[in-house]
Amino acid sequence: MKNNDRNNSPIGIFDSGIGGLTVLKEVSALLPNEKAVYIGDTARVPYGIKSKETVLSYSRELCATLIEKNVKLIIVACNTASAYALHELQSELSIPVTGVIEPGASRAVETSKSGKIGVIATEATIKSKAYSEAIKSLSPDAEIIEIACPLFVPLAEEGWIDNDVAEATAKKYLSAFMADNGTTPGKPTIDTLVLGCTHYPLLKDTISNIMGSNVSIVDSASATADYVSALLNEQNLSAPGDQKGSYDFYATDSTERFSRVGGNFFGEKLSKVELLKLK
Amino acid sequence: MKNNDRNNSPIGIFDSGIGGLTVLKEVSALLPNEKAVYIGDTARVPYGIKSKETVLSYSRELCATLIEKNVKLIIVACNTASAYALHELQSELSIPVTGVIEPGASRAVETSKSGKIGVIATEATIKSKAYSEAIKSLSPDAEIIEIACPLFVPLAEEGWIDNDVAEATAKKYLSAFMADNGTTPGKPTIDTLVLGCTHYPLLKDTISNIMGSNVSIVDSASATADYVSALLNEQNLSAPGDQKGSYDFYATDSTERFSRVGGNFFGEKLSKVELLKLK
Repeated sequence: MKNNDRNNSPIGIFDSGIGGLTVLKEVSALLPNEKAVYIGDTARVPYGIKSKETVLSYSRELCATLIEKNVKLIIVACNTASAYALHELQSELSIPVTGVIEPGASRAVETSKSGKIGVIATEATIKSKAYSEAIKSLSPDAEIIEIACPLFVPLAEEGWIDNDVAEATAKKYLSAFMADNGTTPGKPTIDTLVLGCTHYPLLKDTISNIMGSNVSIVDSASATADYVSALLNEQNLSAPGDQKGSYDFYATDSTERFSRVGGNFFGEKLSKVELLKLK
Repeated sequence: MKNNDRNNSPIGIFDSGIGGLTVLKEVSALLPNEKAVYIGDTARVPYGIKSKETVLSYSRELCATLIEKNVKLIIVACNTASAYALHELQSELSIPVTGVIEPGASRAVETSKSGKIGVIATEATIKSKAYSEAIKSLSPDAEIIEIACPLFVPLAEEGWIDNDVAEATAKKYLSAFMADNGTTPGKPTIDTLVLGCTHYPLLKDTISNIMGSNVSIVDSASATADYVSALLNEQNLSAPGDQKGSYDFYATDSTERFSRVGGNFFGEKLSKVELLKLK
């Protein structure tokens, strides 16, 4: 039997900024009946260069705010926060919490035939080894190459996702996955590449063109949406079929920029974005 | 007569992160007897996408910390904080405070013969119109073209300052200063270009090559050092000639990254960087 109050409740989702909107985009496409509350912590973005302690403290604060807004499940739609804070949040909170790393890692293991998997992400995510640990825990023999691609975030925010700068940047970073350390372009040494940052799906076509058709691109955003769908079913928390999805957007600073740039990430214009003042 | 206590005191300098180290580099080259205390607010970087209110509140907090460390003068070595907070800080504090915008604007006006001046900076600095207002107040007939170049900051931090990505990025942004809206490369419409962000001096050679020899590049960092030198003289605050310059570095988070990346900005390895916990 369903507990309708909770079924009708929104999904909570947070990120350091606008990147998590690519996750919400996949969730809304897969689960059109779900409502969601999204918080972008634009006052303190980026998390990727901050310490574990700081990221954990910010994550706790945002989860408390989401819980006040009566969410039934929380998606930590930020790779850095998933790497640094997920396990603590899961043990401290009474509602289900999921990150973006385990779903992405799990899909990479399912997808890869050669067991040679590449991961691209921010400096902090790579440094945390969260993806390689998650992949190894599922497939101990996997060979993993992890590369930090810090310029992909500002390129995505600038909307430079398929021009000559984006291509030159991607070629330079992705050469690490080519035979002979990049001297043999077009000969990838991996068969699966995980986009381990929520900004990177915007550059997916450019990345995919460079890697070639023999490399499967695993998008953590889409893998996370599948995982959330399964989790809601399993816990009898899915929204009723006659509910219409709606989205509340909050930013902790600069709502104008959040609206303007965020639209490209969500795939459609954002409805009203409210300023959330943290205590 | 000199007040030796104050003459011996360090200069205070703050920025949202490592960018202001290009200003300290110029200050240390010009004023080798001066000590300095540098704070990089790496826990809250970047300021460039935050609101005026937020940037002002952070700036006040950092100035109070510098004053506790007995500094004799404060350099707001951050264009965003100079644009948003300088006038308030100057009226609130009892020691001299200078930003980086007025020195840069003043040198641009001295340098330009045609009165056609370009300014490149972050989105927030451009939006604040601080450079164009400062230039106009000195030269009301100046024609000013301002262009935001958000990718220059991550390029400088990545150390990609003269490769093909840096060149392609600079060509794209700087085309706005070429005749026929970039369709006539090599024909600049300006004779002076202000680097209005403390990260941009690292890309100076690449920018200068694209603009060509008919365009003077004005570096706000170097203009600010000259201004500080004059101000110290005028107020009898210069360090004694037998004092040896030394530098204390503080970062509000991630001291390891501050040390590693900051060395490129300061031009030499940073001595010990301490973590500064804000209250």
